[in-house]
Amino acid sequence: MNVEFINPFLSSMLNVMSTMARMELTPEKPRLKKDAIAMGDVSGLIGMVSEQTSGSLSITYEASLALATMKSMVGEAPDEVNEEITDLVGEITNMVTGGAKRLLSEKGFEFNMATPVVVSGENHTIHHKAKGTVIIIPLNSPDGKAYIEFSFDK
Amino acid sequence: MNVEFINPFLSSMLNVMSTMARMELTPEKPRLKKDAIAMGDVSGLIGMVSEQTSGSLSITYEASLALATMKSMVGEAPDEVNEEITDLVGEITNMVTGGAKRLLSEKGFEFNMATPVVVSGENHTIHHKAKGTVIIIPLNSPDGKAYIEFSFDK
Repeated sequence: MNVEFINPFLSSMLNVMSTMARMELTPEKPRLKKDAIAMGDVSGLIGMVSEQTSGSLSITYEASLALATMKSMVGEAPDEVNEEITDLVGEITNMVTGGAKRLLSEKGFEFNMATPVVVSGENHTIHHKAKGTVIIIPLNSPDGKAYIEFSFDK
Repeated sequence: MNVEFINPFLSSMLNVMSTMARMELTPEKPRLKKDAIAMGDVSGLIGMVSEQTSGSLSITYEASLALATMKSMVGEAPDEVNEEITDLVGEITNMVTGGAKRLLSEKGFEFNMATPVVVSGENHTIHHKAKGTVIIIPLNSPDGKAYIEFSFDK
């Protein structure tokens, strides 16, 4: 089931970054987490619950890309990850899951979203503990990398 | 509303650590997050959704306490945070929210839980982005500190 969730999350992420920050990210091929590790400096996470399944989504940014995203959106950015940046990543996480929720609804999955949590800290990693496989999609840009990761119970 | 969630999460956490790891943590007074920062090395996070509200819970451990918890539970522990430790913290997060879910149900809140996510990385911090205040409860032990944090939309 996880595989059919790839496109809703990926297209929503690309759309949010393109429309909000006028940044075009280049996705790599989605892969299973066991073959890849996402390491970053600021991550947005959100829990998702439906009648059929529950799971979690994370979007991990390298600091350079998070700062460049803010600069592109509002014209200026702080020198390092601060509360403005964690707010921005929380908002992006909300928008990406909101967009994905509509696409998932078309596939028959009606998800309720928990509220986002943002983690900051150099070189942290995210471990999704749902029962399903973890899918990871690296995204490249001239300003740094981001990673979408998600896993669902079935 | 957040204040009445303190006891379900706190008593469930103390109960899980006591029964699973035979460790008695000493809680400090709960406080608002703006007055306190939790910094730790391994955190379990979970999203929660009910008809009335949604939110998120995190349990952040200093590495020393996470390792001591595993040693106390199974007799041995790795030298540093690895996949065994993140699995353990994910399980503890599940058990704490499971216990809290029963106590919250008695208060009329029927929560559905998302699946847990575990973050590892030295000295990371957690930022709950629900609309409500963030409540943080520091917990002390001879092996290090832990922090319960949560926030709900209303």
